[in-house]
Order: sequence, then C-alpha cells, then structure tokens
Amino acid sequence: MSILIKDATILTPSGPLQGNLFIEENLISQISKSPITEKAEFVVDGRKRIVIPGLVNTHTHVSLSILRGYGENLPLQQWLSEKIWPAEAKQSPKDIEASALLSFCEMVRSGTTTFADMCIFDSKEVFDAATKVGMRGIISRAGIDFGTFSKNKLTEITSSLNSSSEYSNELVKPSVAAHAAYTCSEELLIKTKELATKKKLKYQIHVSETRKEVFDILKRTKKYPFEYLDSIGLMDQDSIFSHAGWLTKKEIGLAGKQGVSIASCPISNLKLATGGIAQLYELDQAGANVSLGTDSAASNNSLNMFETMKMASLLQKHHYWKADIIGPKKIFEFATINGAKAIGLKDAGTIEVGNLADLLILDRGPNLYPEHDLYCNLVYSAGPQNVRDVIVNGKFVMRDRVITTIAEEQILENANKSATNLVK
Amino acid sequence: MSILIKDATILTPSGPLQGNLFIEENLISQISKSPITEKAEFVVDGRKRIVIPGLVNTHTHVSLSILRGYGENLPLQQWLSEKIWPAEAKQSPKDIEASALLSFCEMVRSGTTTFADMCIFDSKEVFDAATKVGMRGIISRAGIDFGTFSKNKLTEITSSLNSSSEYSNELVKPSVAAHAAYTCSEELLIKTKELATKKKLKYQIHVSETRKEVFDILKRTKKYPFEYLDSIGLMDQDSIFSHAGWLTKKEIGLAGKQGVSIASCPISNLKLATGGIAQLYELDQAGANVSLGTDSAASNNSLNMFETMKMASLLQKHHYWKADIIGPKKIFEFATINGAKAIGLKDAGTIEVGNLADLLILDRGPNLYPEHDLYCNLVYSAGPQNVRDVIVNGKFVMRDRVITTIAEEQILENANKSATNLVK
Repeated sequence: MSILIKDATILTPSGPLQGNLFIEENLISQISKSPITEKAEFVVDGRKRIVIPGLVNTHTHVSLSILRGYGENLPLQQWLSEKIWPAEAKQSPKDIEASALLSFCEMVRSGTTTFADMCIFDSKEVFDAATKVGMRGIISRAGIDFGTFSKNKLTEITSSLNSSSEYSNELVKPSVAAHAAYTCSEELLIKTKELATKKKLKYQIHVSETRKEVFDILKRTKKYPFEYLDSIGLMDQDSIFSHAGWLTKKEIGLAGKQGVSIASCPISNLKLATGGIAQLYELDQAGANVSLGTDSAASNNSLNMFETMKMASLLQKHHYWKADIIGPKKIFEFATINGAKAIGLKDAGTIEVGNLADLLILDRGPNLYPEHDLYCNLVYSAGPQNVRDVIVNGKFVMRDRVITTIAEEQILENANKSATNLVK
Repeated sequence: MSILIKDATILTPSGPLQGNLFIEENLISQISKSPITEKAEFVVDGRKRIVIPGLVNTHTHVSLSILRGYGENLPLQQWLSEKIWPAEAKQSPKDIEASALLSFCEMVRSGTTTFADMCIFDSKEVFDAATKVGMRGIISRAGIDFGTFSKNKLTEITSSLNSSSEYSNELVKPSVAAHAAYTCSEELLIKTKELATKKKLKYQIHVSETRKEVFDILKRTKKYPFEYLDSIGLMDQDSIFSHAGWLTKKEIGLAGKQGVSIASCPISNLKLATGGIAQLYELDQAGANVSLGTDSAASNNSLNMFETMKMASLLQKHHYWKADIIGPKKIFEFATINGAKAIGLKDAGTIEVGNLADLLILDRGPNLYPEHDLYCNLVYSAGPQNVRDVIVNGKFVMRDRVITTIAEEQILENANKSATNLVK
C-alpha cells in the first residue's frame, strides 16, 4: 500500500515542516517541502491539516472498559471489592473481546496507535481484538499469587505466554507481567522477569501507585519499592513500571541509572485519590524513560492520550509550583517516542524517513487556532475532535473519521450488551 | 421556531429519561416519554443521542484566544510582562473581534452555550461577536487603576457601561467588573460595585488566584481577601469571585453566608502553577454557589468545559485524598445550573419544561459506551468530539457539527491574521 499526504504541516523532530509525506508499505519513505510526484494508491489533501506521530499509551487494561462508570462514587476499597472485582470475575471471553474492541475504537478516535495492555485473564481475545482493529501493541497476562486472582501463578503465565507466542504477529506481541510487588511472591516476581528476559520480551508491573503499598513493601522488605525491585533484578531497560507516584530521591536516581521505563497515569491517580504525583521532571532528568498511560477506562474514565498529556504537564507545574518546569515538546515526546521505546519499538514515535508509518492527520478546529507554537497546541488544546485519519503500520485504521477496519456500530452494541450482563 | 427531538436520552434533573423533547420559541415546552405529535419546523433524530443542558463558562477572557500558546514556557511574570501584556496592548478592535469570534466557535464546538467574559478594553466587539454567533452571556470591562491598564478608571467603566447598555440584547448583557483587589483602589472597588447594584447587574472580580496576592492584601488591609471584599460590600449573591484558590476556613464560611458565586478555573490555576486548589467541596457545603470557568485560552489553553469539569472533579479527589469527595452529578451542576445562576439566569441550566432552551445533543461515541452512569460519562469521558448539535435560546447555533450562524472558516483565517500581526 502507498499513501501520499499533500501540502500538510508535518511535525518532524526538528519542528513543523510545510510539505508532503509519502508512505510506502509500512514505512515513511519520503518527507519533502517540494511536491512528491510518485503515484500513490491513496492521496490525502493535507491542507490546513497536521501530521503527527501516533500516540502511545503505555499502561492500560482494555478488558475493563465495559465497566466505565460502574459503581462509582464509592470509597476505593469498597468500589474494588464490591463492584469491580466481582464484575471482572464474571467476564467471559466474549465480554473481554467486546471490551477490548470498544477500547481500541476509543483509542483510534483519540489518536492512539500503540498500547501496552495488562490482562488479568488469558489474553487471546485482546490479541484478536487488537489485530482486527489494526493496532500496534504489547499484551500480557499479569502474574498474581496473593489474593483475589491468585490463580495467575507461574504455570499459568508461562502457558499463556506459550499460546500467545503462537498468535503474536507483526503488530501485536506478547509481553510478561507481574501485577505488583504487593500481590506477588518474591519468587513469582523473579521467575516472571526471568521468563521475560529469556524470551526477550518487555516486562510490565504496577509500582508505587499508593502510599500504603510503599509502606507495606518497606515493612516487608526493608526497602522502598524501586530499591526492592532493583535488588531482585526487575529494574532494567526492558521493564515498564506503571504509576510510580510515591518515590524517594534515591529511587529516582536508581530509575535513571537503570534506564527503566515509567508509565505515568496521572488521571487514574487523581481519580482514585492515591495522593502521589509522579515526579516526571526528576525522573526524566535522572535518565529514566518517562512515558504516559491512561490506565483503564474504569479508573480514568477515558482512554484519551491528549487529555493525559495535558494532565501530566499541568500536574508537574502544580507539583513543583513552577509554570515552566517541563515544556510541551518534552511532554509530547513522553507520549510518542518514549512510549515507543518503552514498548520496544525502534524507528518509531517520530515522523522521519525510514520510521514506521504510525501517524495521525489532524483537522485544525477552532481549538487549534492560532498556531504560535504547535507543541503547545498539541499538548494543551488538541483532542479527539481533531483526529481525522489514523494510519498504523502504513495502513488506514480510520479515514475521514470512519474506522475502516471493523464495524464500529456493532462493537458499541456488543459492549453495551456485555456491560449490562456483567452488572446484573 | 420549533424543534422536536425524537427518541433521545434526555438528562432531566431527576435522571435520564428516554423520550421526546419539544422546543417552542426559546423555551422547552414539552418533555415526554410518549411520542409528541405536534408539528415542528425542525425534527432531530435523537436515537443513540443524549440531550443535556448547555455548559456555562463563568470566567473567561475571549479577547486573549489569539494569544493561545504564545511565548509559553517562560516563568509567569516574564511571560506576562514580556509577551502577553505587550501583545494585548497592541490589540485593535478588529483583533478583539477576531479573537472573540474564534473563542465563541471553540465554545460552541465544545458544548458551551453561556459565558461570563471580562474584558480589559471596551467590550463592543465582544458583544457583537457573541451576538453574531448566537451565544448567551454577560460581558464587562474590568476596572483597573493600578499598573499597566490603569486607564480603566470609574469614568471609563461607567462610560463603557452606558454604551454597552445600548447594544445589550435578549441574550448578551453587560455586567460590571473590577480586575482584582491588588490592581484597584478601594474607591474603585466600592464605586464599581455600587454601579452594578444600581444598574442591577452582575459583578465580576478575580480573587485569591495567587498566594502572593493573598498576603499582599493581608498586609495592606489586615484582612484576607474574601474578608476584605466583604467588609467593603463586594460579596453578595450578585458577585462572581473568580479563582478562589487560596482560602481560609473563615473565608469559606463567609462565602457561604453571603451566597457569593465562585468561578473556579482549575486548569488555568495549574497551568500558571499558582499552587492553590479551590476547595469546591467545602465552598459548596458552606452554601456558596460554585461554578466553573476555563479562564482564557492563553492560560488554559482551551475553552473546553468538559475538560474543566473533569479537572475540577479530579483535583477535589486529589486535594482531599478522597475518591468520593464530590460526585459527578454535583460537578455537572457546577457547570450548568450553578453557572446559570451565577450569571443571573432564571429557569435555565436544566432540561425542564418552561426553561430556556439552551441545550446540546451529543453523539455517543465509543468514549461514552457503556452507560452505567450518565453523569460519570458526561464528567469523566465526554468531550467536544461528542457535541453534534448546539441550541441556544431555541435556535440552532450548530447543527450536525456545522456552525450555522457564522462562516467558521473565515473566522479561523481572520484569527490567524490578527495573531500573526500582534506578535510581529
């Protein structure tokens, strides 16, 4: 397939460029100020439009979207134990598929091309849903051997991984995950990471989301969570630590030294009132690979990465009482190239010749006028209303605001049906 | 004019109702579960759509939208003195008109039907722009007799008010404003409020936006800002106090006792790193009329009230470390009926028979599925991408995503031209 985007504002790493972009197969093959004369199967009029890299959501749980807004306005523990967990436990494979498909439709419409998902159950349905929609991403079943979902022991994780290896494809890959240090035995943490390393896969884990968890780990191990996980070999460039809202200076230094990826989920953290604010400025300065996630639509309640960029930026300013603590270009990088790196993609996350053609074409609505600073507009003003076309791996997933890969109406109805059944 | 909306989910004060709604002239005349047989000029298919009250933005500066993203990433004082104020001072009436029209387009597309604007200059162009687009709102020229804009003394305010009374109309009304206690003499504060009271107009003022301002006022008057303004007669049910981010318990009690309206602007406060978080939960409990504003697109950088609702809610949860501190229904009321009340509208801000027909018809995209709780979805998940139709005072301002009252493309181009000239 080939796509020519003509006369657009193209956001390259060195700034916006007014010109043309050619996609051949799954790669960006030309970017040029002067006209590109090569024939393309699809030609997009880019006038008054902006081409930017697709957004990367490095922490989510797509199986939970059908619980969006369910049983809310309860204290956190009551919400989880009385509402979310019982409903989650009732999910059939069909429900998980319905929820995943709904999530991917929302992601596409809000400009996300790439994701990292953590499942509690076997992840075949999520793989299938991502593949149907045409998303890029990594998926894992999370190890847990304490509490509610304690059946996710090493045997189950290994077996999930073996079967997922069969259905992994060019765009969607397996990864390995442990739910958290407070829900896993030390043995499970170590063994799952060993498995990931052996299979050369990315590793996902929730870390330091709540203050309670930090002090529970400290009590049990005499170490703060990042120190503990580092001491047992979990912290390296192939791990994604989600949340990281309650860190000591020492832990930040450690994160930088090991080059771990952070998936900060500012909206979910605020919505669940966890109290902590991930120190993205310091983590980035220290050398950690800072990226952003939405967390699930049950705790966000959207999968909108534009909103997540804005919130991440605003919270840094607020937290440090410093309006210029991090500029919008850096925040945009968190949500694009750093996200791509977290997930293990090379030559991705920026608009450059030779890179993967994962990109968005935005309409400039009144919210994007004037354009004194394109990065500012993208981080603080843009939203799903501006997303017109979504291209993943050189193929249209959405064209002129119509999702082209699946029947969206049917997916929305199925999501409603599953949601209604689950909460009966 | 008459409009019939058929088979929609209609959000009434007692909850969502599946049915039909009839608009006659400028009022909601019927709401019914059973079919409405009366003939209407316009019939809207409401299936899979949601009818909600239009959102009310109680604090903004529409003349600043053409500075969106200009000279950002500078420390606050440098940004104001080197960038914003010089550019603002160069604005011609044509630039103000261009900026106001841009702002109203953005408001319409993001579901705002009603606004309270504070101008630094004479406000004729803002009146004209609002009237052209078909918005409802109040507009004021802010008194200032200290510093940069010190020419806005009582004479100018009175004269602006006299001329604005001539061009006020059914939808757009004048109001009186003083910029802030730290930019106005006590005499100007008192006289402007007296003027408002005499003319039976709403009064707008910035209060307790920054910590510095609080302590400057305390030093000068020996009173905290709310106490000071109360002591000179500025705090009553006809005043809108914007920001209110740094309040003592005593001031909150006072706000409740006097029933003043609060226009909280959480996004602007975070973006400018003012550090304070308005205690909306306590203000509401105390009896103040809590409403929400975006502030200007130069400090937000959007005029999106859906985003403002979400941010207001999240910050309360974060601030009190309590996930259920305020429910989404209450937050939605802040942005609708409380906003309407702040601006002085009766029979507005809710979908009820006899009320003003200011309402939105939303498309349910994947971000609004499923619908376990409609208020949750509206506050945490909805956005401009869902806004399909906007009706103000019984007339379409936007229909099927096309703004019907003005030529939007031309407005966007004019905004660009003015913006480019201003920052030359």
